[in-house]
Amino acid sequence: MKCRVCKRDAQISLKSYNLNLCSNCFLEFFRKRVYTTINEFKMCTPKDRILVAVSGGKDSLSLWHILSDLGYRTCGLHIILDIGEYSQRSYQQVIKFAQTKSLELRVVSVRDEFGKSIKELAKIAKRPPCRVCGMVKRYLMNREAEAFDCLATGHNLDDEASTLLGNLLNWQEGFLSRQAPVLEENYTLKRKIKPFAFISQEEITLYAELCGIDYLEERCPFSRRATSLIYKGVLNKIEEEMPATKLRFYKGFIKREYFKGGKREELSPCKRCGYLTVGEVCNFCKLKEKVLERKNLTEGGDDVRRDSYLKGNH
Amino acid sequence: MKCRVCKRDAQISLKSYNLNLCSNCFLEFFRKRVYTTINEFKMCTPKDRILVAVSGGKDSLSLWHILSDLGYRTCGLHIILDIGEYSQRSYQQVIKFAQTKSLELRVVSVRDEFGKSIKELAKIAKRPPCRVCGMVKRYLMNREAEAFDCLATGHNLDDEASTLLGNLLNWQEGFLSRQAPVLEENYTLKRKIKPFAFISQEEITLYAELCGIDYLEERCPFSRRATSLIYKGVLNKIEEEMPATKLRFYKGFIKREYFKGGKREELSPCKRCGYLTVGEVCNFCKLKEKVLERKNLTEGGDDVRRDSYLKGNH
Repeated sequence: MKCRVCKRDAQISLKSYNLNLCSNCFLEFFRKRVYTTINEFKMCTPKDRILVAVSGGKDSLSLWHILSDLGYRTCGLHIILDIGEYSQRSYQQVIKFAQTKSLELRVVSVRDEFGKSIKELAKIAKRPPCRVCGMVKRYLMNREAEAFDCLATGHNLDDEASTLLGNLLNWQEGFLSRQAPVLEENYTLKRKIKPFAFISQEEITLYAELCGIDYLEERCPFSRRATSLIYKGVLNKIEEEMPATKLRFYKGFIKREYFKGGKREELSPCKRCGYLTVGEVCNFCKLKEKVLERKNLTEGGDDVRRDSYLKGNH
Repeated sequence: MKCRVCKRDAQISLKSYNLNLCSNCFLEFFRKRVYTTINEFKMCTPKDRILVAVSGGKDSLSLWHILSDLGYRTCGLHIILDIGEYSQRSYQQVIKFAQTKSLELRVVSVRDEFGKSIKELAKIAKRPPCRVCGMVKRYLMNREAEAFDCLATGHNLDDEASTLLGNLLNWQEGFLSRQAPVLEENYTLKRKIKPFAFISQEEITLYAELCGIDYLEERCPFSRRATSLIYKGVLNKIEEEMPATKLRFYKGFIKREYFKGGKREELSPCKRCGYLTVGEVCNFCKLKEKVLERKNLTEGGDDVRRDSYLKGNH
């Protein structure tokens, strides 16, 4: 097996490109694809300050790694979710990476915001933990990105294709109309970019291994029964039989103009925090209120504390 | 487990409807759904003469069974594909069914048309046998339906959902724009109806068993590696975890108007046979020509026979 580029021995076989590469040429290929994606979709320029959401897993750390290697001005953002030891290990991994690479890092914590863990918040909200966690993370990422030009996340092709599959199976047009590699800035909502949107999980794993990135392999304990894993599993099954399906599927989708006209929910500023939301009060503020109501019930009321929460800089 | 309708013991549990039924109430439920589908999509009326394509498998025989039970005027159409013993057994099954129910049956044979089996035709056409077989069957069904008001096929929800999945994964908009439960008559192309489009394979199997329909369980030997089986497999996996996904997926799709505007290929009458096709000569006539060329090559030419083929009533 020879490297298509340099003709030396190839160690890597990318079925979806029908391409064999040696490690060095793979890294070059990988960097080029990320760089091309960023430019093709006008995600960011070298002048931009990019906040990179980092969980400590391979996708987000690889993203931070490559963005800083490509010369972009980055700062990491880690959200401590307070999901037991998983969160501790995630945090340590991120700290270690930032220190080794001398990169700037911001840290926010769900417990600092609510005085509760995700598990407790899920109980209070009467929602599955993954839904509450997603909502809280989206809110905090957007809020923390205020001083930056954009927010980058490590969503990869497998994430995008599996989300797309779920949205198509259930015809969630509101989501379909927003499932692009770039979501433009909209009033209080910062521009969101996904430089890995066309790069598979498998390629990112290779990149992380070859660059010696020390990432956390462990998955969040709540994610085990996530429907996204079912969709990812079936897409992998199809990809095995028909290589490049995921890429064709997602690339084909973003070319389809008719989804862009899909029903979008009307957004207006939240009456508590001012960030754009659906309805009068955003779910983050609603959750804060619920936490306070509960606290008042058990502690016999504390209106001052409630007020300070509602006016707080969140 | 009690029957939702009559409250007696239920033997059947339909997860996608979250519904338990006894055998009798299931049969009633099944008939009602087929009848409603026919009327909702204006597929046919009791006055229409319907040609029902029957392979000998459970879908097509169940369709013929229920259409005649519901009082529609049907005639069966069986195409002998000449795929070894599988075809012989299919033919016998159809003949037996027609005789037992005293139903009218038409039979055409691929060998009578081409002097060749599907396998030989695939070699001559340099195409996979399933593609050649599909093309030949579509042509013959349409041609045989000439004296009828419409052509009914046993395509079920699993067929429709898996085809839809494949067409979406590969963004085949030409196919997407035509994937409806009814395809209206268009010049030489007869109206095509799929009364089982919202009924799952599982429900049809139950119907066939409960009605004592003697069908051929064997699959066509060529279908083993069909991509449709991969798509069906993954949809079944998703359905297992999230019941009613297939139905939601297909029903949601047919409501989406934007696919109807999809790129359609221009159709014009075939210069040989006059049936609508893409390009100048249809694939059926092209295949006939190829078979003749080959015959002429091996037998030293036979222009009279060639002429009779080309002018023949096909």
